[in-house]
Amino acid sequence: VPTSEQASPAQIARSLIRSGQHQEITYGLAPGYVQCNLVIIKAIHAYDFLLYCQRNQRACPLLEVTEVGSPLTKQIAAGADLRTDLPKYHVYRNGECQDRPNHIKDLWQDDLVAFLIGSGITFDQALTRVGIPIDKRHRWVCRTRLKTEQAGRFHGNLIVTMRWLTPEHAIKATQITARFPFNHGAPIHVGDPDIIGADLAKPLHGPKIDSIPSHLIPVFWACGVTSQAAAEAAKLDLMITHAPAHGFISDLKADDICLP
Amino acid sequence: VPTSEQASPAQIARSLIRSGQHQEITYGLAPGYVQCNLVIIKAIHAYDFLLYCQRNQRACPLLEVTEVGSPLTKQIAAGADLRTDLPKYHVYRNGECQDRPNHIKDLWQDDLVAFLIGSGITFDQALTRVGIPIDKRHRWVCRTRLKTEQAGRFHGNLIVTMRWLTPEHAIKATQITARFPFNHGAPIHVGDPDIIGADLAKPLHGPKIDSIPSHLIPVFWACGVTSQAAAEAAKLDLMITHAPAHGFISDLKADDICLP
Repeated sequence: VPTSEQASPAQIARSLIRSGQHQEITYGLAPGYVQCNLVIIKAIHAYDFLLYCQRNQRACPLLEVTEVGSPLTKQIAAGADLRTDLPKYHVYRNGECQDRPNHIKDLWQDDLVAFLIGSGITFDQALTRVGIPIDKRHRWVCRTRLKTEQAGRFHGNLIVTMRWLTPEHAIKATQITARFPFNHGAPIHVGDPDIIGADLAKPLHGPKIDSIPSHLIPVFWACGVTSQAAAEAAKLDLMITHAPAHGFISDLKADDICLP
Repeated sequence: VPTSEQASPAQIARSLIRSGQHQEITYGLAPGYVQCNLVIIKAIHAYDFLLYCQRNQRACPLLEVTEVGSPLTKQIAAGADLRTDLPKYHVYRNGECQDRPNHIKDLWQDDLVAFLIGSGITFDQALTRVGIPIDKRHRWVCRTRLKTEQAGRFHGNLIVTMRWLTPEHAIKATQITARFPFNHGAPIHVGDPDIIGADLAKPLHGPKIDSIPSHLIPVFWACGVTSQAAAEAAKLDLMITHAPAHGFISDLKADDICLP
């Protein structure tokens, strides 16, 4: 474990999580570092899932895939262990979430592969920096009617994050998120939720929506949860993911994957 | 075959190629449409190759992977057949190029998968539009000392395209190519070739280089040939690629994959 003098904020955050001192959401932790969604599945499904991510890159920007059997990252975080370095996991069996542990040391197997997928938390930080409010009252995750491209047993509808913004902020947010092409990029839709069949009545995350405030405009981005939902629907005998908002903090800096 | 009234320039080009009327290079054909490199391998190697492309995305931006056994594209070109729609192929057996046919109808097998990878030809067109000279006297493909990220049996050094530009053009070209993040993006290096170990003495394509003109600056971009070279070095029993500069013309428009 690095000492705090040498360690980066990302390394410190991972080490606090690993030792059990941080078990809450990672939102706001190690600002400026890219956070990732995690999907762990068996190697026999890895080709189809990798292809699903490739075919739906806007929603599922892959940042790293581990070697079969290895829970260690090599490219996006040095010395990280995916069995311990996220604060909370969801364990699915046959498509049902059956457990929500704080580590998965006892669940790791030699035939597992971990996929790390860019999370919208990364550009939320960039939006916050320019004064666009992105808190729980302004951010939702919901299903749409848009079909994703199938790969093997993985398929399903696109899941999006929605933010209600002033027209001025909507324009600014479009420009800023377009600078993160490998992390969902620009919005996929703006305005009338019905056009993409966004299910605002039952958001997957976020508060209940009664009506859209008339001075605000809804803006929609492809969301990494899409890949998790496709894997969930495939009812694999075993799948392990991060718990919502309990992501993996990488060593990548958001500014380094940001285009001018 | 579409009639010329309904057909797009890309469809017309593919149909001329399919019928054997165009067997030359595709450079300059259907300007504005994204051209692709092709790598066809057996399904047993597809996971590792897909992962190699994911791990080296800058050099190997995947635009489509066909279903196992299918030579037809679904996402980037409607009604295209990869057995006939490129003007020339290279057929490798155990890592040796053994044949250079104009179609591969007799070579297709049920266990083959085709990978289509973005080609630098796409942004060459964007550079040409702003007056940057990109002809045979200004463009080289060469090996470097930079290692790519390995995936299974696929590994090797990064291959780059090099262009000699005036300082003014080098800056403009950097800005323009940065707008194509899914097609190699911005340069990976500018200036002294020795820093990346670019082997200018033996360019893979382009004229012999005696010395760098003093008023010009070499600019280097990651090149899709990297994936082909890695697959060649793996000495697979069968691999089929496009012949250099004889690419696949997709229905994607370069402007549509270009960011502001």
